[in-house]
Formats: sequence, structure tokens, C-alpha cells
Amino acid sequence: MLAPTAGELVITTDALVEHVHFELGSASARDLGYKAIVVNVSDVAAMAGSPRAAVCALTLPGDVDAAWTMELFGGMRAACDEYALALVGGDTNRAEAVVIAVAVVGEVGSGHAVTRSGARPGDIVVVTGSLGAAAGGFLVSRIHPSKLPQALAEPWGRELLDAQARPVARVGEGQTLAQAGATAMMDLSDGLAKDLSRLCLASGVGARVDLPRVPVAQALRLAAGFLGVDPAELALTGGEDYELLATIDLTNLARARGDLRERFGVTLSDVGVIIDEGLVAVDAEGRQSPLEPTGWDHFATG
Amino acid sequence: MLAPTAGELVITTDALVEHVHFELGSASARDLGYKAIVVNVSDVAAMAGSPRAAVCALTLPGDVDAAWTMELFGGMRAACDEYALALVGGDTNRAEAVVIAVAVVGEVGSGHAVTRSGARPGDIVVVTGSLGAAAGGFLVSRIHPSKLPQALAEPWGRELLDAQARPVARVGEGQTLAQAGATAMMDLSDGLAKDLSRLCLASGVGARVDLPRVPVAQALRLAAGFLGVDPAELALTGGEDYELLATIDLTNLARARGDLRERFGVTLSDVGVIIDEGLVAVDAEGRQSPLEPTGWDHFATG
Repeated sequence: MLAPTAGELVITTDALVEHVHFELGSASARDLGYKAIVVNVSDVAAMAGSPRAAVCALTLPGDVDAAWTMELFGGMRAACDEYALALVGGDTNRAEAVVIAVAVVGEVGSGHAVTRSGARPGDIVVVTGSLGAAAGGFLVSRIHPSKLPQALAEPWGRELLDAQARPVARVGEGQTLAQAGATAMMDLSDGLAKDLSRLCLASGVGARVDLPRVPVAQALRLAAGFLGVDPAELALTGGEDYELLATIDLTNLARARGDLRERFGVTLSDVGVIIDEGLVAVDAEGRQSPLEPTGWDHFATG
Repeated sequence: MLAPTAGELVITTDALVEHVHFELGSASARDLGYKAIVVNVSDVAAMAGSPRAAVCALTLPGDVDAAWTMELFGGMRAACDEYALALVGGDTNRAEAVVIAVAVVGEVGSGHAVTRSGARPGDIVVVTGSLGAAAGGFLVSRIHPSKLPQALAEPWGRELLDAQARPVARVGEGQTLAQAGATAMMDLSDGLAKDLSRLCLASGVGARVDLPRVPVAQALRLAAGFLGVDPAELALTGGEDYELLATIDLTNLARARGDLRERFGVTLSDVGVIIDEGLVAVDAEGRQSPLEPTGWDHFATG
């Protein structure tokens, strides 16, 4: 039971699934538990909510030992402590694969919730922080073992792995963006290109993205040669950044940017504009091309 | 987003897992969806809460077709309609087995929530309705196909199957029991013997159960010969009845019983008493034996 509430309720669910999101052999149970909570807190944050409580429905194969499960719950509790929510219950069953299905309930001040569906033509498209680090971390975690020591010797190697294993949910930032007038908001779990297409679909609008304005994580830029990837491409399509994607009227942009910098030290990048219809990418030379809503699709890659 | 709330929040999660709770070949997708919601609503009911919203994290193997998934969500929506809660979101991933992890958020009037931990020595142990029908339905669903037509020709056969496929959550009953002074409460998902042992553990007490007073479902009595089971034994240890188990001071028992009968037409059986420690069963001849906390244990049987 939780203390009385004054606002609206929000509830989210997001599952981490073995063989889809992680492999037991390469993921730390503590990191998995931590991440399972944070990805749900991030969904609450993207509605401008405050997380209140979490539950976890877990399936475990018979050969997972108790120590692993203890570590998993340790990670969940650490994340719950960090984001000030209560881990209030769960359900455990045996199955052939590990499924960590967390649900988080949160609250939003009455009338302050932001959804995906409020974007209007002319609104500016903004993102918090920088993009692509988690996707870079995923690639680092999959490189050949003989090359791993080299990556881990570099600060960017550890930074990318950490971005993927320990995402940050932008709770205060979401509320600040809402107060500053965000018209629509969601978190970036499947990549900017794909998630922006979803926001546009929900709002019945289109968007134009200025590719050079997409903020690429510095660690990813440094790692690009080693990993053999285009960092700008990965920042556009890589998943699991859990930064916020929002739309906001131009007149409110400066205030939103200032508040985020001042309160959280977080940058807000304007990466495009909402248009009537269609998804368009504009490169550094001003050439337009369709913005393909490709990205982190578990069903496509699974 | 949901309307403003006045009370305390409760959140529950309970997953239905392929090969543990059901097999794709023999379970209706619509029934599964319905049940996945109801078992969570039942948890909210057992805290004297009202369900408000549900989310579902679903994993699906690649060979499950879209029609199956539509049916599943149809069943979830039907249950949400019936219990007046909103199905507000979900998350779907590919995996080797179907996992239907539902979470439900509910609310309880401030200070009115009932937990498992408030039972005191001298309290009467009560259960709503009758027990064992769902376990009987499980057995009917597993009998040899050559015998199934005979079972389905009998009203008890259909009744038992229905009890297992379409459980009822006792929402109003839970609130009525709380108003009448229930000191502890939970729902019966794993059998009276096992769940009572959990309630006693949480409350730091013991219990004595009068076996002849345990209400056995009439359909199970009628089916016992056909199924070759002891109906009293199945009522004590069979799972998935989703009736309420509560403890209540003797002075409040008559009111609780009268209110339940009057408002819901539901019987309330007093089956025992809370004692200082230990779990004891007393048979019709007054002989005492240990009440073994055995029942529906997915890990033991999985």
C-alpha cells in the first residue's frame, strides 16, 4: 500500500527477455534488475510522471541459481532506491527462458500528463542528452573476445557499455519539459527514427529531421573507427538510449533548454520540426530523403 | 492516464506461463486473456481494493498467429469491461514460450486496505464460496480424450471446466469483508492449505482447520467418482479457486456473513480458528493431524 495520491495515475510495463534483450552468459544479473526498473521509470518520466511503485513478474529456467535471482532483485532494489519508488511485490514462475516483466505505477499532477499525441505542425522536435551510446555499448558487448580488452582499456569502451547496462531515466527532465510546454513526449527506447515515427503517427502529423543536429554521444564518435560504424547513423537508429523525445512550441524552447541545463546539467537539442505529414531527413548539404522508421525492432531482429 | 484518486494505491502482478499454467493446444486464447486479468483483479480484491487499470507484458513465439493474439486481447478486454478497469498499455516481445504478465493498479480507501499480516490468535478463519472446482476443472481438462465426451455431457463437467477457465474475482466481497472487520485477507490461488500457511507466516500465528467445515464445490462432489479423487482433499489443496481467505473476530462474523449473502448471494464459511502457532487439521472424529502446506506449487510440479 502506498500513501494517498493527489494526481492522475499512470501505469507502464516493459519486459526484458532472454535471447531478445540479453543473454545470461554475458549480462550481469544486477545490471539486468536495475535496467528492468529503469526502462519502466523512463516510460513514467516520458509522461511527466513520478514513479511510485513497481512489481515484477519473473520467469526462471530451472538451472538459474538462487544467487543469480538475489543479484537480480538487488539490482531492482538499487534502481527503486535511486528513483524513490517502492518494489512492492512480484510473481515467479518456472519457464524455459528468463522473462523479467516489470510494471511501474506513477502519478502525474492533475492535467499535467503529456502523451505522444499532442504534436502540432510547427512544433520543434527536441531530444535530451545525446544518442547512440547504448547501441554502441551493445556492439562493444558483442565484439570478438580477442578485441574486448582493447575496448575496455579505453574510457569510451567502459562508457558505452555502461550506457547500455545502466540507462538513466529522465524523471525530473520529463516534468521540466512538461512545465515548459511540451506538446508531446515519449522516451527513446527503439531509436529516434522509429520512435519519432510513432509519435507522429499518434499525433497525426509528420516531421522533418535535420541530421547534423542529432546529438551523437561523444564516446560513440570516439569508438566509431574501432567498431566500424557510422556514429550519426547509430545515433539515429540505435535503441535503448532512454533519452526523452518531445515536441514544443518555438516560443517555449529557450525556457525549456535553460531549465534543463540549470536544474540537471542536461542539454536539449532541437533536431527538427513537426510538419503536416511525412517523415523527412535533411542532410548537411540540404538534401532531403525519406526518414526510414527503422531501428531497434525486436520482432525484426529476433 | 486515469482520473484523480482519493485513496491508497495497490499494484499487483501475476503471470500466466505456457507449459506451467496452460498449453497452447488445449487453452482458448480468449479464456487465457480473461483469466490473466481476473487473477490480478483478485489480488486487488484481496486487499479490499478496486481495480483501475491493467497493463500486459506479453512474450510470443514466432509461430503464434495474429488471430490468437487478437483473441487473447479480446479476452483481456472482456475481463476489463466486466471489472470496470482500463487496459492501458503493453509490451510485446518474441520468446520461445508464451508469457502473459499482467499488472493491475487499484485503489483502496485510505486506511481500509487489508493485508495478510493482521491475523490474531482467536480470529475465525473464513472462506468465500466453495473450493476445489478449478482443480476439478484442471483434472477434467487432462482426462483421456475418450472419456471427455462423458464428462462434457454432465453439467458438473462443464461447470468444473468453466471454474478453471473463467475464475471470478471477489471485488465487492473483499471490500465487504474489510468493512466488516477482516483482520487479514488474501485470495486462494494455490489452495487453502498452502495459502493459509502463508497468511499465518505473514501474521506470525498458526491455525487450526476443521476439515468437515471446508466448503467443497458441489460439482466436484458429483465428479469425484468419475475423476477418482477425494473431493475434500482437492478442496483443501487444489489451486486457482480465487475465493477469498480471511480472518475476522468472532463478534464480526455474523455481520460479514449476512452482508455477503445479502449483497452478493455468496456464502461465507468459517473453517477454523487462528492459534498461537502451528498448522493443525481436525477431522470429523476430532482427530488432529498436521495441516501440510501442500498445494499448487508451480516450482514443485514444474
